Amino acid sequence: MTDTAIFDRITFIGIGLIGSSMARVIKRDGLANHITVTTRSQETLDNAIELGLCDTGTLDMAEAVQGADLVMICTPMGAFASIGAEIAGSLKPGAIISDVGSVKEPVFETLAPALPDHVHLVPGHPVAGTEQSGPESGFPELFEGRWTILTPAKGVDANATARVEELWKRCGAMVEIMDAKHHDQVLAITSHLPHLIAYTIVGTATDLGEDMQKEVIQFSASGFRDFTRIAASDPTMWRDIFLTNRDAVLDVLGRFDEDLTELKRAIRRGDGDALFDHFTRTRAIRRSVIDAGQQIPPAPANDTD
Amino acid sequence: MTDTAIFDRITFIGIGLIGSSMARVIKRDGLANHITVTTRSQETLDNAIELGLCDTGTLDMAEAVQGADLVMICTPMGAFASIGAEIAGSLKPGAIISDVGSVKEPVFETLAPALPDHVHLVPGHPVAGTEQSGPESGFPELFEGRWTILTPAKGVDANATARVEELWKRCGAMVEIMDAKHHDQVLAITSHLPHLIAYTIVGTATDLGEDMQKEVIQFSASGFRDFTRIAASDPTMWRDIFLTNRDAVLDVLGRFDEDLTELKRAIRRGDGDALFDHFTRTRAIRRSVIDAGQQIPPAPANDTD
Repeated sequence: MTDTAIFDRITFIGIGLIGSSMARVIKRDGLANHITVTTRSQETLDNAIELGLCDTGTLDMAEAVQGADLVMICTPMGAFASIGAEIAGSLKPGAIISDVGSVKEPVFETLAPALPDHVHLVPGHPVAGTEQSGPESGFPELFEGRWTILTPAKGVDANATARVEELWKRCGAMVEIMDAKHHDQVLAITSHLPHLIAYTIVGTATDLGEDMQKEVIQFSASGFRDFTRIAASDPTMWRDIFLTNRDAVLDVLGRFDEDLTELKRAIRRGDGDALFDHFTRTRAIRRSVIDAGQQIPPAPANDTD
Repeated sequence: MTDTAIFDRITFIGIGLIGSSMARVIKRDGLANHITVTTRSQETLDNAIELGLCDTGTLDMAEAVQGADLVMICTPMGAFASIGAEIAGSLKPGAIISDVGSVKEPVFETLAPALPDHVHLVPGHPVAGTEQSGPESGFPELFEGRWTILTPAKGVDANATARVEELWKRCGAMVEIMDAKHHDQVLAITSHLPHLIAYTIVGTATDLGEDMQKEVIQFSASGFRDFTRIAASDPTMWRDIFLTNRDAVLDVLGRFDEDLTELKRAIRRGDGDALFDHFTRTRAIRRSVIDAGQQIPPAPANDTD
């Protein structure tokens, strides 16, 4: 092992935006001695090899995980159950299994049951990304200054969690350990609801007449544009997020519905005071986000009206 | 008149983000020989004078517009009716009256009736802004590469419209002439609905428990953050937008509601195909926005998940 390596062998199952960004850091900084990549399609695998993201690559998932100290699953969550079944018999004792899925409780229902007792499961979620996908879209700075949330079950080997945490910190991330169910509730409001709303509103605009649609795009800088970016995220990934975090999403959606109905009623009644009070309250939240260092630097001009 | 001047005397009624940005360009490039500013509060007026945004300033609105070739109204729209009454008797024959309000049809109901026949009304809407407000937040580049929409009534003096258009082009804007009612429908979907949704979702998050609220801010980079920026826009301005563009906003809100209900049903039923199809469709819209040059350059990384 080199001085900088945290793991001898890391295997990536799936190598999209997140996985390829991690692989780029690991390669650049020598955080592993050997990277293996396995994918479902030959094309993606060839792409990953060409991009220099791995030392070896194979379409055989079971073969890919043999001898791996860390298996990092970077596929849509819909594949987790079948991945668990496919790799279970080939994992070496003491191997650490982690993932980067956006919903964490289902990992214990889909992936965990298939795994042997002699491995350590440390689910994770890097709260970072762009609307791009695929191995060519990754870049090593993706995680810098961003949070990665780890949700190991109670009683999991502390050393395994510490090593995954170390890897993320070396990727530039800040790490938070959290209960999986709580994670899913927090992300339902910070991420899943905003994406659902953005997907909806962009769809609503698309259904307008063709003449109107041209102008919607022409004048998108007035607010709509911000929603299009969010609504351009990977469809497979987001389908799986809403299917797996259904209860938490429907819960916050119910609250959102109530609040929207209240504002709608204020508009219908011409109740300017109610609108003003609401808009004043939300302005303070922006300040908190900026104070927490989670804004986009620099704040873009020309962005609202 | 200097060579560069489009107007001899311009009077700004109100001097917030938009007005002060215009005044900065006009001063910098000598687009008028004289700028007068009038405001409701002494503090804002002092601020404008100190910032060098005008040649003369007064709290007396009627006095401020005397001799003006262009009167540019940059206040919240709720003040338009009273402004019309206050300035009507002091406008010189041939004066051009314009504004920067975000809803255009009401200008013909609130402002126009008070104005004398010997002036020209050319309502306008610069589709630009930031979440900041006040004269200190303006900057001369605000309108560069952005649209300004003018909505003169049929039969208005073509020369008056041309001069306002020229002013906006010299501010760096692209100009589109549009029917006022159509403008309000287009903006209802591109701007007003997105803002209403953002205000709602930020409010929903604020109402969660205190523990949850801390985490919502901490992990806001996952999507929520984009909404907080929009929801930090000026409360008075946005109250007036929703009050004045009520019908168009309620109409698009109705469509949005239907679409959201459909997606909600797909989540509840676990209908992954319906979700995937919807998300795939919206992705194409983002491409159109980028092709139209209306995206934020550069596309920020670390922005969704």
